Amino acid sequence: MNAPAAHFPTAADVRDAARILEGVAVRTPLIYASALEAMTGAGRVFIKPEIFQRTGSFKFRGAYNTIARIPGERRHGGVVAYSSGNHAQGVAMAAKLAGLPAVIVMPEDAPLVKRNNTKALGAEVVLYDRVREDRAAIARKIASERGATLVPPFDHPHVIAGQGTIGLEICDDLQRLGVSPDIVLSPASGGGLIAGISLAVKDRSPATRVIAVEPEGFDDTARSFRSGKREKNARMSGSICDALLTNEPGELTFEINRRLVGEAVAVSDYEVREAIAVASRKLGLVVEPGGSVALAALLHGKLDVKGRNVVLVLSGGNIDPALYAAIMSEC
Amino acid sequence: MNAPAAHFPTAADVRDAARILEGVAVRTPLIYASALEAMTGAGRVFIKPEIFQRTGSFKFRGAYNTIARIPGERRHGGVVAYSSGNHAQGVAMAAKLAGLPAVIVMPEDAPLVKRNNTKALGAEVVLYDRVREDRAAIARKIASERGATLVPPFDHPHVIAGQGTIGLEICDDLQRLGVSPDIVLSPASGGGLIAGISLAVKDRSPATRVIAVEPEGFDDTARSFRSGKREKNARMSGSICDALLTNEPGELTFEINRRLVGEAVAVSDYEVREAIAVASRKLGLVVEPGGSVALAALLHGKLDVKGRNVVLVLSGGNIDPALYAAIMSEC
Repeated sequence: MNAPAAHFPTAADVRDAARILEGVAVRTPLIYASALEAMTGAGRVFIKPEIFQRTGSFKFRGAYNTIARIPGERRHGGVVAYSSGNHAQGVAMAAKLAGLPAVIVMPEDAPLVKRNNTKALGAEVVLYDRVREDRAAIARKIASERGATLVPPFDHPHVIAGQGTIGLEICDDLQRLGVSPDIVLSPASGGGLIAGISLAVKDRSPATRVIAVEPEGFDDTARSFRSGKREKNARMSGSICDALLTNEPGELTFEINRRLVGEAVAVSDYEVREAIAVASRKLGLVVEPGGSVALAALLHGKLDVKGRNVVLVLSGGNIDPALYAAIMSEC
Repeated sequence: MNAPAAHFPTAADVRDAARILEGVAVRTPLIYASALEAMTGAGRVFIKPEIFQRTGSFKFRGAYNTIARIPGERRHGGVVAYSSGNHAQGVAMAAKLAGLPAVIVMPEDAPLVKRNNTKALGAEVVLYDRVREDRAAIARKIASERGATLVPPFDHPHVIAGQGTIGLEICDDLQRLGVSPDIVLSPASGGGLIAGISLAVKDRSPATRVIAVEPEGFDDTARSFRSGKREKNARMSGSICDALLTNEPGELTFEINRRLVGEAVAVSDYEVREAIAVASRKLGLVVEPGGSVALAALLHGKLDVKGRNVVLVLSGGNIDPALYAAIMSEC
């Protein structure tokens, strides 16, 4: 890793990332979802739709916050990243806006829409086998050969701080509305998104519970919270949530999340499909599987929300068109 | 009509409506849509998604602004409205929040989702034949029998002023971003939405062009602009845009629109289907046919937007699930 990974990010780093991202990232709105209150008995429910972020997911934030800080003498080497898709697009767009070349190492089974979008953003795409090959090793080799800077998907202070700007915006918008958040539900895979969000939210509102949502069978975060050390997932494929299939929590992200999050729930593929249909019919939002787990957890009663103010982070909208059409026809 | 229809609404009435709606209507966000800039060559493109409004369309605004002003002695008689669907749901929700009973006169061919949603909001639904019966006459009869107040779908000063709050919010949000709008594209049918928007926008930004978008074959507004008097549509059905099938512009709305709008373009059913698919794939938004005409006009080059800052009003998201599934499979 080329950037200083030892630095433990703080709420101040998130505020600093917000300054870097201002006028570049989309400041996504906080949408009041009254329809979900009647359906769940929750207090007030709000949605943070990173669907509207550049490239359709939150990943642009961390990528740009990292790439914008690459020093001048390293910029010509460009950047390299490995990703199941959303981080790839985020890095490709961030590199394009910053004027750096980008190489993206992607699994062969990533949705075609994500591969095509990444190429359309001017990045070079290198494919690998998700089961047999080590994507981090491939990326490190490219980085060393080309002098490229690796932009890790989650376990990096600038990446975490960039994703954390979502938490800052949630707090700012709720403060303006005079609403105090009881619960923030966020997807967790490598844990960069929820680590950043928890840094920002716990700093501003220590009593708010930030809760991780994972796909069933990929509950490494929940098991790691219970055992107190980083646990691995048994599999690397087999969930509809292609964006949430990481092997284990990151080192940095787990250190943050065990202190500031500490709670996790899991949702099934069936519950995710239902959530995608509800997002479409009741909220007017197109959400990808991994992006809908917080909504699935709310809708399927994974925690007690009675009378509580809840914020759902819908982290991305890049769903494969064929899968979306199938869910729209079935549910 | 029970309320004073002679009053010609002004920008001050729109500001007054904003005070009535504050904390009741959803203040929908203005979403920056960078994806549309690359696709169209426009300057900056923003979306005003009334999809997120209560009941999934802008109609709640005008309905609540009208119903909240019904004097105490008339409230027990409740309200009555006629509508192809979105106005029905808006009136039903507004009446529910204001504590008044509501009767809705709906065409037999309105999408089932809209009929069911209207009933679920506690309103009584009375069906009529769109071709053979006069919905206004049916509503007037109910109003006279029950002492109910008629809430017209568009040709009423409070309804127009309520819809105009969309224009106010667009101006406020763009001012905060330091962006000056060159063009605002809005659907037009009876003309209440675009009349209200033009009152607000032209007051704050006289150089901004507010342009009406209609379905092909239902271009009464465009023909009325050309002839200088209210022209009728030849048909009352036969477009995918079920929300935009009004017979002719309103009296009040046409007076406002010929002074402040004066420009209209038309889009085909095919272009609307394409726009619905683009809204899903590129914007993450579920838009109904009538709600997507502004996007269809932008995407299909109905006007010169080169380098211009454009705001698209996406007026509703209540698409029939079967139609949506079909478009997602085809496009």
